[in-house]
Amino acid sequence: MEAPLPEPEPLKALIESLRRLPGVGVRSARRMAYHLLQHDQPGAEQLSRALSSALRDLRHCARCNGFTEEEICATCSNPKRDPSILCIVETPADQNMIESSHGYRGLYYVLMGRLAPLEGIGPDELRFDRLLKRVDDGLVKEVILATNFTAEGETTAHYLSELLQSRGIAVSRLARGVPAGSELEYVDAGTIAWALMERRST
Amino acid sequence: MEAPLPEPEPLKALIESLRRLPGVGVRSARRMAYHLLQHDQPGAEQLSRALSSALRDLRHCARCNGFTEEEICATCSNPKRDPSILCIVETPADQNMIESSHGYRGLYYVLMGRLAPLEGIGPDELRFDRLLKRVDDGLVKEVILATNFTAEGETTAHYLSELLQSRGIAVSRLARGVPAGSELEYVDAGTIAWALMERRST
Ligand SMILES: [Zn+2]
Ligand SMILES: [Zn+2]
Repeated sequence: MEAPLPEPEPLKALIESLRRLPGVGVRSARRMAYHLLQHDQPGAEQLSRALSSALRDLRHCARCNGFTEEEICATCSNPKRDPSILCIVETPADQNMIESSHGYRGLYYVLMGRLAPLEGIGPDELRFDRLLKRVDDGLVKEVILATNFTAEGETTAHYLSELLQSRGIAVSRLARGVPAGSELEYVDAGTIAWALMERRST
Repeated sequence: MEAPLPEPEPLKALIESLRRLPGVGVRSARRMAYHLLQHDQPGAEQLSRALSSALRDLRHCARCNGFTEEEICATCSNPKRDPSILCIVETPADQNMIESSHGYRGLYYVLMGRLAPLEGIGPDELRFDRLLKRVDDGLVKEVILATNFTAEGETTAHYLSELLQSRGIAVSRLARGVPAGSELEYVDAGTIAWALMERRST
């Protein structure tokens, strides 16, 4: 819906910026803008500040590629975690889901995406060179592929499996307890714990 | 879902700020944050800037109470609009819906809310004194009540009707062509045009 009334420029700009958020259409964007301006100006200020501070202060962990304020994130620097197993996930949300299953005490690598040739996302875009460097630290004995069980996640797992096995690394994939076609983020923690235990070599 | 992994502070703050948006739960907030940081940093910057500029530059129109950068908004200063009819709406979104029906050429007043005694929103909170001052400009002959057809919108319309009629102003309400219990923003423009034509005195 195009607003037929002349909207002031800052309001228009705010609505357009909110529309860029995933899952937000023009109607929700407009509601959000009105809500912030009319009922939650402190919330608007807080969001503005949170965005710029996140952009300024967050970077990718040199080891796992997840978001962190430090050179190395808290998970990667935790001496209690087993450095011989590396679990590869697509996103930090997937990492959180694995972690919440309480079935895993190894380390992680976050791809921040998946192979999607149609969108022009290949091994270079996902920086597989960084992943290989990470895997070659002399401590990693096994890699668990925990990409999503979608077409693209499976492709990514298959590609990584070949790549890593050719370098003599043991590779496993989460067991197919995870319902096919689903995204890890939406699977319950119990199923994930089970899939971790039942993981099979590829 | 509480993230079981230690999340860096700026990421946590960003997720919490996004959660304050209407209709956004913790899971969507996390997705939005990851999306902005990983795939749309320009979008994040743009949103941050849009929020602070909207907070800085927008104010309420001295005549209609809508959002504007000027003292008086473009709609209120438009000499082609009929100053003898004033349409009272709850929000700018409702105003847009009325406007998109192309059935109205008068002016508007935006309440920026509705009477909601349970939430502590009464005539004082909605600044009905400003509304009365606006109506007393010597030009307004008729007020059209276009609050929502919800319980609170009806209460607001009823209250305003008594208040305005006691001051000798002709008051009408949108015809009940608008489905009862619904919000104007979600009604099609044709129904609204019809309801405007069929409006009845209260
Ligand atoms: Zn890390
Ligand atoms: Zn105005």
